[in-house]
Amino acid sequence: MVNETQQSCSASSSSKSDGGSSSGSESSKDNSRCSTPVLDADRHERLREKMRRRQEAGDKWFSLEFFPPRTANAAVNLISRFDRMGAGGPLFIDVTWHPAGDPGSDKETSSMIIANTAVNYCGLETILHMTCCNQTKDDITGHLQKAKRLGLKNIMALRGDPAGEEWEEEVDGFNHAVDLVKHIRSEFDDYFDICVAGYPKGHPEAESYEADLRHLKEKVFAGADFIITQLFFRPETFLKFMKDCQAIGITCPIIPGIFPIQGYHSLRQLVKLSKLEVPQEIKDVIEPIKDNDAAIRNYGVELSVSMCRELLDSGMVHGLHFYTLNREVATTEVLKRLGLWKEDPRRPLPWAVSAHPKRRVEDVRPIFWASRPKSYIYRTQEWDDFPNGRWGNSSSPAFGELKDYYLFYLKSKSPREELLKMWGEELTGEESVFEVFTCYITGEPNRNGHRVTCMPWNDDPLATETNLLKDQLEKVNRRGILTINSQPNINGKPSTDPIVGWGPSGGYVFQKAYLEFFASSEIITALLKVLKKYELRVNYHIVNVKGQNITNAPDLQPNAVTWGIFPGREIIQPTVVDPVSFLYWKDEAFALWIEQWAKLYEEESPSRMIIQYIHDNYYLVNLVDNDFPLENCLWQVVDDTFELLN
Amino acid sequence: MVNETQQSCSASSSSKSDGGSSSGSESSKDNSRCSTPVLDADRHERLREKMRRRQEAGDKWFSLEFFPPRTANAAVNLISRFDRMGAGGPLFIDVTWHPAGDPGSDKETSSMIIANTAVNYCGLETILHMTCCNQTKDDITGHLQKAKRLGLKNIMALRGDPAGEEWEEEVDGFNHAVDLVKHIRSEFDDYFDICVAGYPKGHPEAESYEADLRHLKEKVFAGADFIITQLFFRPETFLKFMKDCQAIGITCPIIPGIFPIQGYHSLRQLVKLSKLEVPQEIKDVIEPIKDNDAAIRNYGVELSVSMCRELLDSGMVHGLHFYTLNREVATTEVLKRLGLWKEDPRRPLPWAVSAHPKRRVEDVRPIFWASRPKSYIYRTQEWDDFPNGRWGNSSSPAFGELKDYYLFYLKSKSPREELLKMWGEELTGEESVFEVFTCYITGEPNRNGHRVTCMPWNDDPLATETNLLKDQLEKVNRRGILTINSQPNINGKPSTDPIVGWGPSGGYVFQKAYLEFFASSEIITALLKVLKKYELRVNYHIVNVKGQNITNAPDLQPNAVTWGIFPGREIIQPTVVDPVSFLYWKDEAFALWIEQWAKLYEEESPSRMIIQYIHDNYYLVNLVDNDFPLENCLWQVVDDTFELLN
Repeated sequence: MVNETQQSCSASSSSKSDGGSSSGSESSKDNSRCSTPVLDADRHERLREKMRRRQEAGDKWFSLEFFPPRTANAAVNLISRFDRMGAGGPLFIDVTWHPAGDPGSDKETSSMIIANTAVNYCGLETILHMTCCNQTKDDITGHLQKAKRLGLKNIMALRGDPAGEEWEEEVDGFNHAVDLVKHIRSEFDDYFDICVAGYPKGHPEAESYEADLRHLKEKVFAGADFIITQLFFRPETFLKFMKDCQAIGITCPIIPGIFPIQGYHSLRQLVKLSKLEVPQEIKDVIEPIKDNDAAIRNYGVELSVSMCRELLDSGMVHGLHFYTLNREVATTEVLKRLGLWKEDPRRPLPWAVSAHPKRRVEDVRPIFWASRPKSYIYRTQEWDDFPNGRWGNSSSPAFGELKDYYLFYLKSKSPREELLKMWGEELTGEESVFEVFTCYITGEPNRNGHRVTCMPWNDDPLATETNLLKDQLEKVNRRGILTINSQPNINGKPSTDPIVGWGPSGGYVFQKAYLEFFASSEIITALLKVLKKYELRVNYHIVNVKGQNITNAPDLQPNAVTWGIFPGREIIQPTVVDPVSFLYWKDEAFALWIEQWAKLYEEESPSRMIIQYIHDNYYLVNLVDNDFPLENCLWQVVDDTFELLN
Repeated sequence: MVNETQQSCSASSSSKSDGGSSSGSESSKDNSRCSTPVLDADRHERLREKMRRRQEAGDKWFSLEFFPPRTANAAVNLISRFDRMGAGGPLFIDVTWHPAGDPGSDKETSSMIIANTAVNYCGLETILHMTCCNQTKDDITGHLQKAKRLGLKNIMALRGDPAGEEWEEEVDGFNHAVDLVKHIRSEFDDYFDICVAGYPKGHPEAESYEADLRHLKEKVFAGADFIITQLFFRPETFLKFMKDCQAIGITCPIIPGIFPIQGYHSLRQLVKLSKLEVPQEIKDVIEPIKDNDAAIRNYGVELSVSMCRELLDSGMVHGLHFYTLNREVATTEVLKRLGLWKEDPRRPLPWAVSAHPKRRVEDVRPIFWASRPKSYIYRTQEWDDFPNGRWGNSSSPAFGELKDYYLFYLKSKSPREELLKMWGEELTGEESVFEVFTCYITGEPNRNGHRVTCMPWNDDPLATETNLLKDQLEKVNRRGILTINSQPNINGKPSTDPIVGWGPSGGYVFQKAYLEFFASSEIITALLKVLKKYELRVNYHIVNVKGQNITNAPDLQPNAVTWGIFPGREIIQPTVVDPVSFLYWKDEAFALWIEQWAKLYEEESPSRMIIQYIHDNYYLVNLVDNDFPLENCLWQVVDDTFELLN
């Protein structure tokens, strides 16, 4: 980029370096000296700006629609699906509004809470649908205020299905989506990006196709930023619609809604709801294979791929919106075949970012929550500003307590029976616990033939990076150094490294070796003796549930353990070992023994008492090797400790 | 350090990580998240705390007393002396109060401004003397308010010499130092550290030695933090005094005032002023050699060394205060022989820090002012807070204009005639300018046999670090790439490295290669073509005096070019290349051609017109090679440019 400009008096001119618009910003720290534009422009931009930037760059994109689930268990599964499908790089997801499901409530299955989870805990740009008919202005305003408070920035404004057979307009009420668009703009100014629905065949209740186009234009002129269309079966349907829109002066983005046919019944149901007709050529293919789900899905994928290709090839379409029906396989398959599914191994930061606007400058976290990012987000949700550049001093806002380990976005994905198979139906001693940790590390099945794919401190299988340390980790876990977090030292690997890389390309990433584990007091006594030899090199912090607290952290300062150097940027140091936060993490880490593991067993049962004993008597330790250019000495520290014990 | 404490509920406990006391703090950002305790504890502590810490550590120290000079030129010299003697590591310096010299004024020779310069521009902990007799409370309060505003934190409270022969106490006035101590404590609470004078032989006007001790106790009990004594000639005089003080309950530090005899006349004058008697054994030595300055000074050094040794060996003395008479040699010699002169090659940061309390968290600066730190401090003196951890976004406070290049702390140390000898009595073309730059780099004498030891952009000979680049710099300056700032790339050298190291030991320092130069438009045209090849690797910024402004800095963000990784700390990145600040620096860099160089010559003279031509037509360029682990490519960029020109 070459900015050659004539400046009359350059020194007094002040350039805005912040790429994003500041409107709609909730961050009170926007102008503080420490707020540097973060690495990932996406975190700054509004959805409509992202769309424009992608379009200008000739970069095709996709988005995914989900509906709120009926049960709490289904919600847990949906959130995992968000994480998995989020990996493919959707520009946004949207969550439909189910008037019958108490959509604005705090229930874990409500539209509001599902959208909240997508934004805050999964870091996905999210549109919340909202329907307005049969609702008061106050209801609607309340929902919108709540959405804003939760960090939602985009609303799909819909009329909704009127209750009862014969619907009559209410005087002064919300009768059409355009009323909702106007209301949002009048009450919330430009805060929300607003999406409205377009009907390529005309709305079934509209007087005519032309009248419906005029309604659409009204919605856009009332303040909508873009349009997502109802599903359709032939590309020409959409392309004609788009031309007709443009002809009457609709210039905003129009995104075609794509419905990959996934089964005979779901198609029939959708057609009934949307009052669309399935073209004869499709019926002709489907009817003969209606009992063969796989065949129908294959056909649906083929059909979608060819339709999408035609749309993209027209040059008029830049993004595709998928009606997923909360399913993964068909949509993912279509996206992969189109080349739009982009599992980018590069991460903007080494941890999953949240998409809440107030967290958009956040770029430092304590390493302790590395495997529990959703818990970290939950415990810091009340903070007004987030560390940017530095963790800062320890007069930081307090961490919220984590009492409810059963919040659906914190819940283990595995049911109780599964956990018992992994962690032992019956424990016979501390050694059986060592074995569980060891099996988790090695990936080998336990003595009952089950693989241990999660632990109370880590809901997912071992990270690729931790695999680098596998042999050493296996050895120490067998002997009762029960590791829950670790990273190798890295002395300047390219930021594009597939395993340890993060941030923009052209940079270099670094790490100090880190090891965090539980261990018995016998081990700790020996460890402390050994650590004397490493006093200048290794920072340690050792705590137990009773509050014993031993550290050599100078002035209780944070220690940066991950950092990256990038072209044309200030240093980014996304993870630190902070002695103050460790005390908050310690409470959570110890509680997980009881909440997730001990409570699987009957009270007073020997298994439960073993876990309780460990909880009451073990120490939680973190070790940092400050000499990142040398060979990691933490394994030597552990070996020396075992040697001393022998 | 092992902090083993029983905490009842550790997670809710909040530890203070800030080692220093927060009283007396002027910084409004103390509790911002970004304020991390800086590397150098000294920058946090009050003088009395530093004294206590040194004493507890058994670490002997020294301090230096200066008086304000009579002329502006003498002030320039004194400031250089502060820089040189500051390198020996005094715990503080103090500046005497000359009632006859308009001591509280803004004159460059006033006590106030000399002390201001020592604190802000030389980064020295400074005590300002203040006398109170014959002054109104309002005068005194005004002086103290001004001192506080300028960042002075320590006052030596004195009575001063009454005007007229027969002095009478004023009712309600300041009659004794104790009145001033009380006034400071009542008006400024605990803001200032207060020092008072002790008289080992008793004050000449006191009724008795005992009465004088009681006065001293009064001063201490009124709020003085420590005592500096009048000079004395025998160690036993001080040791007896100290015991007598302790006997009557004076427990604060008492620092002996040491006067190295430097000449016959200065001794006589001082003795007259202080009404002290020179012991016979000293007179016996001095009288026979009174015309031999060198012999007297040698004797004075010997005497001081042996007296200081005796004081230190007594175990009662932890610091020594030197009456320097604004001279360097004798005091430095004594200190070196005592082993107290500690030229510490380790720097807390790679640039000279200021001791103003509001700058104590400052740890990031643009690299442009690397050789003009006093100018940087001057131009940012109005800022309310200073970058800590990150430079931050470009909505930073504006830089003050630098109009008066003749402010004494910004003035060249060399007189006009000297500069003409170095930079040419007469210039014959741009090439003669290239030659000056080249001679400055090589250290070789110019064609008239004079060495070029300073340049308008750099008042000192080439830095050791720049010497690493000497050969390349010589080559490019000869050809008209007129370098004014550069640093080599460094990929993780120990923080104790004698040339490029900084910060606490045990760390690693890094740099991106940097090169800043003036060049003609022909060179720039070629350079821009060459830079296309290096687009992803090299950040560049090219400006001229007319406001042309070409850069590839992404989003006008700052680029960290020096950083350090230390045990148990967050990352420190003390210098950045900031595209916004560069435009402010550019104005200064171009103005220096005219202010410092062109104006040496007659108006309309050919020499002046050559400099004016360069000022009007050359470009200022900065280049950063982002690939710090690889071999510096900036020389290749320059070579390619010359090749293209050929």
